[in-house]
Amino acid sequence: MRKLNIAMIGTGFMGKAHSLCYSAMPSFFWPPPAIPVRKIVVDVNDALASGARDRLGFEEYATNWQDVVTRSDIDVVDICTPNNSHAEIAIAAAKAGKHILCEKPLAMDATEAKAMLDAVEAAGVTHMVAFNYRQTPAVIMAKQLIESGRIGEILTVRGQYMQDWSADPGTPLSWRFQKKLAGSGALGDVGTHVIDMVRYLVGEFESVNAIVRTHIPERPLQTGAFDKMASASRDSSGPKGPVDVDDAFITMIRFENGAAGFIEATRNAYGHHNGLGFEINGTRGSIIFDYQRMNELKVMLADDPQDLQGFRTLHMGPAHPYGEHLWPIPGLGVGYIDVKIIECFNFFKAIAEGRPGEPSFRDGYQISRIADAIVASGVSQKWERISDF
Amino acid sequence: MRKLNIAMIGTGFMGKAHSLCYSAMPSFFWPPPAIPVRKIVVDVNDALASGARDRLGFEEYATNWQDVVTRSDIDVVDICTPNNSHAEIAIAAAKAGKHILCEKPLAMDATEAKAMLDAVEAAGVTHMVAFNYRQTPAVIMAKQLIESGRIGEILTVRGQYMQDWSADPGTPLSWRFQKKLAGSGALGDVGTHVIDMVRYLVGEFESVNAIVRTHIPERPLQTGAFDKMASASRDSSGPKGPVDVDDAFITMIRFENGAAGFIEATRNAYGHHNGLGFEINGTRGSIIFDYQRMNELKVMLADDPQDLQGFRTLHMGPAHPYGEHLWPIPGLGVGYIDVKIIECFNFFKAIAEGRPGEPSFRDGYQISRIADAIVASGVSQKWERISDF
Amino acid sequence: MRKLNIAMIGTGFMGKAHSLCYSAMPSFFWPPPAIPVRKIVVDVNDALASGARDRLGFEEYATNWQDVVTRSDIDVVDICTPNNSHAEIAIAAAKAGKHILCEKPLAMDATEAKAMLDAVEAAGVTHMVAFNYRQTPAVIMAKQLIESGRIGEILTVRGQYMQDWSADPGTPLSWRFQKKLAGSGALGDVGTHVIDMVRYLVGEFESVNAIVRTHIPERPLQTGAFDKMASASRDSSGPKGPVDVDDAFITMIRFENGAAGFIEATRNAYGHHNGLGFEINGTRGSIIFDYQRMNELKVMLADDPQDLQGFRTLHMGPAHPYGEHLWPIPGLGVGYIDVKIIECFNFFKAIAEGRPGEPSFRDGYQISRIADAIVASGVSQKWERISDF
Amino acid sequence: MRKLNIAMIGTGFMGKAHSLCYSAMPSFFWPPPAIPVRKIVVDVNDALASGARDRLGFEEYATNWQDVVTRSDIDVVDICTPNNSHAEIAIAAAKAGKHILCEKPLAMDATEAKAMLDAVEAAGVTHMVAFNYRQTPAVIMAKQLIESGRIGEILTVRGQYMQDWSADPGTPLSWRFQKKLAGSGALGDVGTHVIDMVRYLVGEFESVNAIVRTHIPERPLQTGAFDKMASASRDSSGPKGPVDVDDAFITMIRFENGAAGFIEATRNAYGHHNGLGFEINGTRGSIIFDYQRMNELKVMLADDPQDLQGFRTLHMGPAHPYGEHLWPIPGLGVGYIDVKIIECFNFFKAIAEGRPGEPSFRDGYQISRIADAIVASGVSQKWERISDF
Repeated sequence: MRKLNIAMIGTGFMGKAHSLCYSAMPSFFWPPPAIPVRKIVVDVNDALASGARDRLGFEEYATNWQDVVTRSDIDVVDICTPNNSHAEIAIAAAKAGKHILCEKPLAMDATEAKAMLDAVEAAGVTHMVAFNYRQTPAVIMAKQLIESGRIGEILTVRGQYMQDWSADPGTPLSWRFQKKLAGSGALGDVGTHVIDMVRYLVGEFESVNAIVRTHIPERPLQTGAFDKMASASRDSSGPKGPVDVDDAFITMIRFENGAAGFIEATRNAYGHHNGLGFEINGTRGSIIFDYQRMNELKVMLADDPQDLQGFRTLHMGPAHPYGEHLWPIPGLGVGYIDVKIIECFNFFKAIAEGRPGEPSFRDGYQISRIADAIVASGVSQKWERISDF
Repeated sequence: MRKLNIAMIGTGFMGKAHSLCYSAMPSFFWPPPAIPVRKIVVDVNDALASGARDRLGFEEYATNWQDVVTRSDIDVVDICTPNNSHAEIAIAAAKAGKHILCEKPLAMDATEAKAMLDAVEAAGVTHMVAFNYRQTPAVIMAKQLIESGRIGEILTVRGQYMQDWSADPGTPLSWRFQKKLAGSGALGDVGTHVIDMVRYLVGEFESVNAIVRTHIPERPLQTGAFDKMASASRDSSGPKGPVDVDDAFITMIRFENGAAGFIEATRNAYGHHNGLGFEINGTRGSIIFDYQRMNELKVMLADDPQDLQGFRTLHMGPAHPYGEHLWPIPGLGVGYIDVKIIECFNFFKAIAEGRPGEPSFRDGYQISRIADAIVASGVSQKWERISDF
Repeated sequence: MRKLNIAMIGTGFMGKAHSLCYSAMPSFFWPPPAIPVRKIVVDVNDALASGARDRLGFEEYATNWQDVVTRSDIDVVDICTPNNSHAEIAIAAAKAGKHILCEKPLAMDATEAKAMLDAVEAAGVTHMVAFNYRQTPAVIMAKQLIESGRIGEILTVRGQYMQDWSADPGTPLSWRFQKKLAGSGALGDVGTHVIDMVRYLVGEFESVNAIVRTHIPERPLQTGAFDKMASASRDSSGPKGPVDVDDAFITMIRFENGAAGFIEATRNAYGHHNGLGFEINGTRGSIIFDYQRMNELKVMLADDPQDLQGFRTLHMGPAHPYGEHLWPIPGLGVGYIDVKIIECFNFFKAIAEGRPGEPSFRDGYQISRIADAIVASGVSQKWERISDF
Repeated sequence: MRKLNIAMIGTGFMGKAHSLCYSAMPSFFWPPPAIPVRKIVVDVNDALASGARDRLGFEEYATNWQDVVTRSDIDVVDICTPNNSHAEIAIAAAKAGKHILCEKPLAMDATEAKAMLDAVEAAGVTHMVAFNYRQTPAVIMAKQLIESGRIGEILTVRGQYMQDWSADPGTPLSWRFQKKLAGSGALGDVGTHVIDMVRYLVGEFESVNAIVRTHIPERPLQTGAFDKMASASRDSSGPKGPVDVDDAFITMIRFENGAAGFIEATRNAYGHHNGLGFEINGTRGSIIFDYQRMNELKVMLADDPQDLQGFRTLHMGPAHPYGEHLWPIPGLGVGYIDVKIIECFNFFKAIAEGRPGEPSFRDGYQISRIADAIVASGVSQKWERISDF
């Protein structure tokens, strides 16, 4: 069975998630398209990198990604670093002929994303962006219902990604609040996830019209641990620095196929921790999803007899997408790892089949254009066409 | 105890609801501000009017509202007719010095609404618009929580009113789909309810930016029963006529106090029957309401200890607004009638205190301006200021 | 149209609810089987009785029920008094040839209930017990689904009625905690409601096996207002008296048709205000109901395709039982009054058709036998057959 | 860092889950108490065993567990076989001085369980039973709330474990329906999980009183795949064999601390896939859990102000048990693997600390006694004391 050696750059939250998948994926998808080998892990200094090697089960470690991505024994480069280094690493890896899995958002903006796309297409390698939530079985089930026509023609969609980990003004000023490191705030961090999901389900965006806001203009300088998100201690007493990214946005959307809708994303909506979801209303039914109950999909079918119409709550299981690979009973508890394992499988399947993954860098580039249009609309206070970005 | 004689114009769905309240209100609010007397009911012909008298418990009936509203023994005129006759009846009643309860929306547009407002203010009578949903105990509880500062400063609001009774193209072309009778479609019918509720809770609208759509351009001509809504039979085989009002709209909102948000209203969202609701996110908490579970209010308070934070579901009862007047146990089932009874109480209380009701015609006029701005924005595809209408 | 004169005995919570129904029922069910006339109301002294006459809209009042129930101009006697007077009033009314609506539980025990049943059957009058919750549209819908075979043969049922208004030890010692007035505690008060509902849906009980408990052995003596339930002020500082009824019970059940199940009832389950509900599992599906969301019924049908199986949430509306008489849109808010109005309609329909109402005193007697068997099992700690009581 | 070599016996559903945990646990709990090494896996023939080695990432495989459990390089024996072989393997492993993790239920009955307990206690090894669901963060949070007194003294508990994968009579006759292989049916399979959870939260059982039933007396003989549960194809056309275990049971419980309650377990309740849950009512609050929404815990605290009382829904995250080891945001999706990883951590922690795991074989034995008492009560139709078993 083919083995593929992985170099993983970055060892934070995503590094942990990805390395687990490399180990676990074959047990779920046997025989796997290829067996991932955790070859080498890279972080910024010896202590972090060697610690990650032990903790995450890699064979080697390094501190210089430039050397690693060109190593002849490396097949795959996995980019888990903050957003501002994605482009440089990805372009170098592509030039070295490596397959690339890149964390989201793909780039700091559409220009950078386009350069990355050009690089991987020129190199002919497999490329994929880790918009993992579209890999959730319930989301794929929604896609299948839409494609089979069960809810008719799509009229309206509402998408949201609502978190609250930064609602407290004492949440530290991590890289996620700095434009030079993150590119944008809630927009790039969570907004692109919901943009990806809505685009995947409904179709191509034609134009957007947005309100983009920063609620908390400065935050305490970060000391100690890096990017602890909801587990960070909140302390507003020390010195502060400016936030130059968005905390939240809402946007209306016109789709190329005539549907309309809106998206909201925020990291400041108290009570919502990871509230990624959507509702889609069609001419023959509706679908609702909330990732906080990720194993459930609510479906209303107008073809039901009138006295038996209502949203039915499906629990994902063996009868649903990837169900036969996960657990033998619905409701046993598909979690975040399972979603990342499905993502991992799809990436290696794409490599085995010599094609881009889904979502590809092309999808990632398109999402960057949409994000740039949202930023522009927030300033212009007008409808902005995606094709202009 | 003071008794007030009522003339009710119109005997449809709202006529039934209002007449029940006149009978029931004193039992709930004893001693009542005044005792409503169901004096005379008016409909377009003898059969309808005399039938309504018997069915709804009035003393007399008539077919000519012009004669009725000037009768010296009438204290209150209750307008339950389609939207296109509100202004004429209300202005005549005001001139005759009657107190007026008018069904919503107040008027066909802001110009008409302004004339009605001027008439009642000139006459010095009590006036109130039947945006009944803001009288729901859970909604008033939300208002109290906001005013007491429990959720901090409001950042964002999402309001929606989603129904599905007209989603089927076979739903007949009742007056609700004709501009000359209704003024607008989902906007006036359900949109104004959610506009009223959001404005009541969050504050004055500064500007709107909307998408307004008609999904189903023609419908079967109506035969037989008038305005049966969800209970109408659906039959697409006969002759059809054009729909010249909106089926749905979405709008972004900027509020005068700096909050932002959006509203959606539709009568074509399968699976939602009377889905009037909102979510408000503040700097110290969040509140969620869905009228389909009208006895519940979800509240998240950031002041709770971190490991005990979460939306709590309050069931309205004796500890909540008007609870001591309704039923002795939370969860017993406050329904639509109870809400209309509270509305009735507030109307008669306003009469007894010699002041406008809440919401008054001034509120109704302001809501008409917002509705007109939404219509204009749907055409201009730009932000429209409410002050321009 | 036939008019029937009503004498209502008792003016508390139930007196308010019943009198509303007499006024409102014809508007919902037009033409009604008969028009109820609020003729005379009875309470223990002049102040209470005359106040109730005004507040509840009766023509006359009295303080001596014995005189009233024999009046020749009275057609219907409505018994809304505490449990210990039901038998005496009902038997006298039956002897006088009056139709009788009696609040639940029918009697203090099965012996008393049997005497009442014998009296009404001997008199040939219409008789009905106000187990109102089985009149809820969603419950009737459940009954129809069961009878049509949609969920197959019933295997198991779980019923519960959980309240919390007496969970606080400071809740005053009203008549509901005194055996001589109430007969039993949670068993008679809320337990008989859920027994009625389960028996209505599943069938005749064969035997029971129960745990019966009193959690709070004494409570503050009541001062001032009578029976305020959840709206009573809680004060534990004053003198106390003993509670000699149950706070809660659980019982297993064997049904005559082979089904099995259990019931729980309590007034001390914090967080449940009026949590009357059930789940029924059959060989082809399941049904769930919770009165706190009384407009919803959850139905799972095994005949659905496997990937679309799940509980669907039906919102009661025009397509469901009595829907055409209530409101024109599902989700508008059927509440407690609506349920009592349906009960009222069914009672007058039974009078018009010259037959017992449903549930009749025969049902009430059977429920008393079940309640007595539960009490006995709580003592014997053994299975007790209903036929032995 | 200490490494411990594992021999895993059995490679089905549980074998897959356990081997994932051995790989993933250190990444979550770094530094781990010890590093698990997947040394050798055992199944009944070469094909199964060698396949499992590759698929599950073990170094070696074998077909004879007797040889394996005595190997000097093995530290831990992990028993994932059907119930009828647990005792023999565990006793042999204990005699060889190995630490033991045994899948649930511990044994075929209490007698067997006692022999296993005696063996591990005599050997002084670490022993633990894989009642994994009590390792769910929300369940541990419930335990902490109870122990801290937040809900007061426990009055009543309702536990249930409801599945529906065997509700269809066409579900094949796997080992789970045969007494000689499984010992019991729903009782051992799912009932013991809920017994463990309720006992963990509420305390020691004093006596039980049960109804035990088999709804489907025969099932199609199994062909092909072993134990596919919900993913088995259902075909009733072929030859059938008898089911000699229970499909479902309900039991009342008296606890030693005076609490009372009941438990239900079934594999035939349509619509419930993995419906393990409980509700606990105390003198100061209530707690509700449903594993199908395993990241949520509903808590009602009577100490809240009356108008803010209600069940609050907590989403498990960094502020809750094990949260700092899992994911940095509540609601990200703790799933089945995460629970098993926590179990794995606790097992290795117990080894490192030289003590039994929790739950230990002593807990497993006590649960077997309760299960035996339930079986006996189902026959005797009487209360049975646990101390008699």
